[in-house]
Amino acid sequence: MIPKMDPFTRWMDLRAGVIADAPVETRRLSDMRGYYSPDLGTTVTDRLVYEVYPVPVDEANSELQCSTTVLQPGRVGDEFHMTKGHFHATRDRSEVYLGLSGAGLLVMATEDGRHQVEPIGPGSLSYVPGGWAHRSVNIGSEPLVFFAVYVGDAGHDYATVQERGLPVRVIAANGSHAVERNPHYRSG
Amino acid sequence: MIPKMDPFTRWMDLRAGVIADAPVETRRLSDMRGYYSPDLGTTVTDRLVYEVYPVPVDEANSELQCSTTVLQPGRVGDEFHMTKGHFHATRDRSEVYLGLSGAGLLVMATEDGRHQVEPIGPGSLSYVPGGWAHRSVNIGSEPLVFFAVYVGDAGHDYATVQERGLPVRVIAANGSHAVERNPHYRSG
Repeated sequence: MIPKMDPFTRWMDLRAGVIADAPVETRRLSDMRGYYSPDLGTTVTDRLVYEVYPVPVDEANSELQCSTTVLQPGRVGDEFHMTKGHFHATRDRSEVYLGLSGAGLLVMATEDGRHQVEPIGPGSLSYVPGGWAHRSVNIGSEPLVFFAVYVGDAGHDYATVQERGLPVRVIAANGSHAVERNPHYRSG
Repeated sequence: MIPKMDPFTRWMDLRAGVIADAPVETRRLSDMRGYYSPDLGTTVTDRLVYEVYPVPVDEANSELQCSTTVLQPGRVGDEFHMTKGHFHATRDRSEVYLGLSGAGLLVMATEDGRHQVEPIGPGSLSYVPGGWAHRSVNIGSEPLVFFAVYVGDAGHDYATVQERGLPVRVIAANGSHAVERNPHYRSG
């Protein structure tokens, strides 16, 4: 076959996660309304929660989307900083997470309410099969940095997680963290 | 959808590349006959050239195959240690390489004889589009370690590269390295 594109290289800081010459997508607290429980008031400082450095390619199933995420430490009430979380729009597409620095949890859930929580840290290699919503949570005191790769045509469904929540949430407890049932979760 | 599998996590040494609880595929010099030019004689020590630590999943286009490769430093004649190199059997499937440690080159070529060479090193993030054969070469004095992810149903076509070679090869030159035309390459 005649390739439709040429190879290219980007450079990533393996600890800080920044990809040179990549666009950056910024999520501040004001971008996260409806994700934390209870919902954010209007008085909070609109601080940075996380940044994503993507390497966008065609949204085809022959391709791979990859990015790094840098999730700042912090809490909203008792809940630790987290990403919005999403299902893939094309539900059966899988994703791989490689932890680079910091300490976190990968919270996953199925549409029928099962959940599974895996660790994220330097060298964690987590497989998120199709059909599992996924959200990362920073439970440490430094930025949580990970590299993610997913099938090119997976797409994002944020709305389902925003509307229903996930079955569990990660809160501060006794100087550490606890995974507890999310009282605001609405089963499908 | 009801997911067909549950999430799981493996642990990778981000510098050494070893994935705990993964199988290991070992390539010794005797496994590399036909890849170097001229072909290996029978008198060489059958030393280790590289190891691959795969995390195998279903060979479906919804999935992602990932692995680390640890390529030892060394030479065969003037040629630096390298992987066999392959096209994907399903030609249009792409692959991503994340360099973790060491110094190398990623040699790529199309079926119609174009080539492109990209660096591999800590934090290099290289995109190998469908239709490009790919081989890594260790040009340094320590192991070259990288993480690779490719679309689940890509498969491997080693035979084309073994039979034809690649248009360029990487040799030692003046205490460093040079990329030169491969006189043994057979165009398609």
